[in-house]
Amino acid sequence: MKNFALIGAAGYIAPRHVEAIKHTGNNLSAILDPYDGVGYIDKYFPNSSYFKEAERFDRHLFRHRGEFDYVSICSPNYLHDAHMRLSLRNGCDVICEKPLVLKLEHLNSLRSLENETGNRVNTILQLRYHDSIIALREKFKNTNKVHNVVLDYITPRGTWYNYSWKGDHDKSGGIASNIGVHFFDMLSWVFGEVESFDVENGDLYSRGTIKLKNAEVKYNLSIDANDLPWDEWKPYRCITVDGDELEFSEGFTELHNKSYEQILLGNGYGLSDIEPTIKLIEDIRNG
Amino acid sequence: MKNFALIGAAGYIAPRHVEAIKHTGNNLSAILDPYDGVGYIDKYFPNSSYFKEAERFDRHLFRHRGEFDYVSICSPNYLHDAHMRLSLRNGCDVICEKPLVLKLEHLNSLRSLENETGNRVNTILQLRYHDSIIALREKFKNTNKVHNVVLDYITPRGTWYNYSWKGDHDKSGGIASNIGVHFFDMLSWVFGEVESFDVENGDLYSRGTIKLKNAEVKYNLSIDANDLPWDEWKPYRCITVDGDELEFSEGFTELHNKSYEQILLGNGYGLSDIEPTIKLIEDIRNG
Amino acid sequence: MKNFALIGAAGYIAPRHVEAIKHTGNNLSAILDPYDGVGYIDKYFPNSSYFKEAERFDRHLFRHRGEFDYVSICSPNYLHDAHMRLSLRNGCDVICEKPLVLKLEHLNSLRSLENETGNRVNTILQLRYHDSIIALREKFKNTNKVHNVVLDYITPRGTWYNYSWKGDHDKSGGIASNIGVHFFDMLSWVFGEVESFDVENGDLYSRGTIKLKNAEVKYNLSIDANDLPWDEWKPYRCITVDGDELEFSEGFTELHNKSYEQILLGNGYGLSDIEPTIKLIEDIRNG
Amino acid sequence: MKNFALIGAAGYIAPRHVEAIKHTGNNLSAILDPYDGVGYIDKYFPNSSYFKEAERFDRHLFRHRGEFDYVSICSPNYLHDAHMRLSLRNGCDVICEKPLVLKLEHLNSLRSLENETGNRVNTILQLRYHDSIIALREKFKNTNKVHNVVLDYITPRGTWYNYSWKGDHDKSGGIASNIGVHFFDMLSWVFGEVESFDVENGDLYSRGTIKLKNAEVKYNLSIDANDLPWDEWKPYRCITVDGDELEFSEGFTELHNKSYEQILLGNGYGLSDIEPTIKLIEDIRNG
Repeated sequence: MKNFALIGAAGYIAPRHVEAIKHTGNNLSAILDPYDGVGYIDKYFPNSSYFKEAERFDRHLFRHRGEFDYVSICSPNYLHDAHMRLSLRNGCDVICEKPLVLKLEHLNSLRSLENETGNRVNTILQLRYHDSIIALREKFKNTNKVHNVVLDYITPRGTWYNYSWKGDHDKSGGIASNIGVHFFDMLSWVFGEVESFDVENGDLYSRGTIKLKNAEVKYNLSIDANDLPWDEWKPYRCITVDGDELEFSEGFTELHNKSYEQILLGNGYGLSDIEPTIKLIEDIRNG
Repeated sequence: MKNFALIGAAGYIAPRHVEAIKHTGNNLSAILDPYDGVGYIDKYFPNSSYFKEAERFDRHLFRHRGEFDYVSICSPNYLHDAHMRLSLRNGCDVICEKPLVLKLEHLNSLRSLENETGNRVNTILQLRYHDSIIALREKFKNTNKVHNVVLDYITPRGTWYNYSWKGDHDKSGGIASNIGVHFFDMLSWVFGEVESFDVENGDLYSRGTIKLKNAEVKYNLSIDANDLPWDEWKPYRCITVDGDELEFSEGFTELHNKSYEQILLGNGYGLSDIEPTIKLIEDIRNG
Repeated sequence: MKNFALIGAAGYIAPRHVEAIKHTGNNLSAILDPYDGVGYIDKYFPNSSYFKEAERFDRHLFRHRGEFDYVSICSPNYLHDAHMRLSLRNGCDVICEKPLVLKLEHLNSLRSLENETGNRVNTILQLRYHDSIIALREKFKNTNKVHNVVLDYITPRGTWYNYSWKGDHDKSGGIASNIGVHFFDMLSWVFGEVESFDVENGDLYSRGTIKLKNAEVKYNLSIDANDLPWDEWKPYRCITVDGDELEFSEGFTELHNKSYEQILLGNGYGLSDIEPTIKLIEDIRNG
Repeated sequence: MKNFALIGAAGYIAPRHVEAIKHTGNNLSAILDPYDGVGYIDKYFPNSSYFKEAERFDRHLFRHRGEFDYVSICSPNYLHDAHMRLSLRNGCDVICEKPLVLKLEHLNSLRSLENETGNRVNTILQLRYHDSIIALREKFKNTNKVHNVVLDYITPRGTWYNYSWKGDHDKSGGIASNIGVHFFDMLSWVFGEVESFDVENGDLYSRGTIKLKNAEVKYNLSIDANDLPWDEWKPYRCITVDGDELEFSEGFTELHNKSYEQILLGNGYGLSDIEPTIKLIEDIRNG
């Protein structure tokens, strides 16, 4: 049984990690979040030590060096790299949410710390475990054509989003970095590396074209409810490849569990796997 | 349709209020919380204005005076009275979580502000809408005996609780004020006013006897899992009256909706209704 | 002897207010600041109650209604209006730092609260008490020409400024609102009302021309050390009127004391006095 | 020229460190404080990078590894050890305010990190550079008697102190740890190691007797103005040895400069030097 700590325990995505730790039969013995609304933890690991401050959490990891195997990281994007350093330095492997970092330079500096510490960074790329995406990759693995891909992803967010850290460009990286990262990674996993792009970014959207080795992708990401094709407040996702629509509305719930299973088997995605996508979101951000 | 604002929107109990506002067919148009994890609001009222700071929220209410009917308050206990003042001064009625305030003096000062503003404070006393409790009250309404009541309420909390605002005596008032308030109010609603008490308080428990007009209550409240009668991490609730056990494990989910329905009909519980209980929790806290 | 409370007690300008309260023979009995580095208060009023949270401070003012005469306000600019409302509602007159508010609309809403409460807002316009400026106003009081005024004010700030609330446009209003407000008010006090302007704003500067009734003002405000005429890190101030330089390097230290003396005599500057300047900084901000 | 970073730059004692860095001809190129009131830095090192968050500060140190020689630490006491770890891990030597840590265990864990990193911790023990104390040590260096020492140190603090981190026992360690540490270290430096003690601690005082190798110390530390021998709000310090009063009211201003000079020469006091005092304050705290 592996022993985990969790950074960002009060956040939206943290319960998926807690469930995955439980699902894989492991233990969560310390959590960190400046916000103390973490009562849900009682259903899973009520005896977890709780810390409000990174400093005291660091003391705990340091005093218990050798007792923690993994630190899972769900903090705001711009803090990921610092929290990974804290974890690696305390002798822990890392499982970090996406986007792993916001700049290629940050990724490179993590690589040097991996080497120094002998510990390893794993990144959550849950769409690579989605059945539809796996099937898609399989289907096109030997293609040598350039396919036409159209991606529409309209996932509306309320007013609060713009005033949260997610709406702060310096903290989240903006729409393309915070939401687009999933699709950019998934598409280049299927259709090969990025050759060029031409995009337009706004506070509520990112759209444009990305030329991959085997696909010309036209995408439209938006969090603006006005862009929805219906009146309901529910996300609209549509991917077509050469005009054929991909079934892509189900199958999201178990992906963190699958990610954890593979990571624990030593098959996690690491710094090199995510590097091209980090480069892409940084380039897209810079225009 | 009434227009609501909500203070403490990220907290544990806030979604019950949001649901009750929806359930009663009303609108929530502004929310306040220093913590920005309020994405659940999108399922209900995605167009709500979001504020991280009470100052900016106050500006919004002031600029829109006459447009807000109610402010619902779910902030940490020690902030309730300040948030009620903010609401009353902006011309709004109030619906506030329990314990309404931590000291009788705070309650009295709200009364003067109710008079000045013409607006009204409603307190959530949801157990008074629970069928079992209503039946109990009915059963004993004409009694003139002193009944024996035994209340055990073991509701375990993880380590985090002690390091959250709930574990900070100055902010929550401690176990008797934060958790016991429900039962003290409910029992005196059924069995009459407090005549005397003899209690012992700890960080994880409050226990003792309370002499009501028509009952001698022996109670044991605890958040310590070691006090549970079973190994599972689930709450143990048991109330007996003259040795007969009260059915009291179901029926909690709709109580905020029922509370809102009555408040909106003008039947809410106000400052006078909760005054004896506030006096009791203050007295118990002082020993 | 008047009794004061102070909001923003840890900030840069707060000690001037504390000194002015002492200088005028009055008492400071409560201070508020989320940051607890307020030890300097011990030299003046060691018995002041200290509050970290506006909510608890509000409770204190409310419980002691009638005991506080004035609230002095030195919080970040965007909080001024909320803190003035809090003060007026608790029956206190206000002495508020500049810029009083960031928008004309906020000023208007304060006017309605002045009327409701019978309490009054005073704004600190300390340059109107500077001997050189008084002399200047006297000199030109009967002019009916349009004079040429050139104002250079280079007051360098370190890197920290851009990452503090002062560098956050939404909180400070930017250079023209946060620093320029002094000069805009002073010049229109001397040369009459604003007729038109043509300005350019950057993160580190605001420059352009303002046409007043009796002056054509060419101004250059900057916090960029590269704009200094010398190598030293010290501010450069230069005002010329029709080519004559105004002596303006001394005489700043006592201006808060003088402001307080006049306010306490009932001669303070109020909402109407500052209204044109607030309109100007808002217009300049909007370009 | 050495390159410094500074943690806790907005705090009370930080300017002494900034002055010492300047005084010794070195450079300060990065500062950290969650509170942004650090404008005084412009008089010394206006080009210092400023960070509000330890995470971003850590990124900066990591990216510039090899460029920083020292990190000076003036944060609240309970954060010292975490900030020392952050500094050592980024390849920097440390100069840390007193009390270096609050528990012997924390000191021991720093020792292991010194060994791992090859970097060194220096602690500020400025009284060891005070002329009167040096003379005292000289005078008694060959003594083999047990002298009678009486220490009174009444240094009043206003109400704010109790509500600041300094009044929070978990953060400051209380009066004996936060204020007494100076005297305990100084006296055992002069009179030898602690053999036993009998003390009484309150929120506003610590008093009792400490038996050193060559002295029986009767001490009274207080921050309560009521304990002053005069009506003025100014500290009362009195040390007598065998009935003779030590001159001890002057000579405090240059001590940080002297400390830095010695540290830069490689003569700083390290973990072993402060270990007995840390043990003592922990023992005194535990009663």
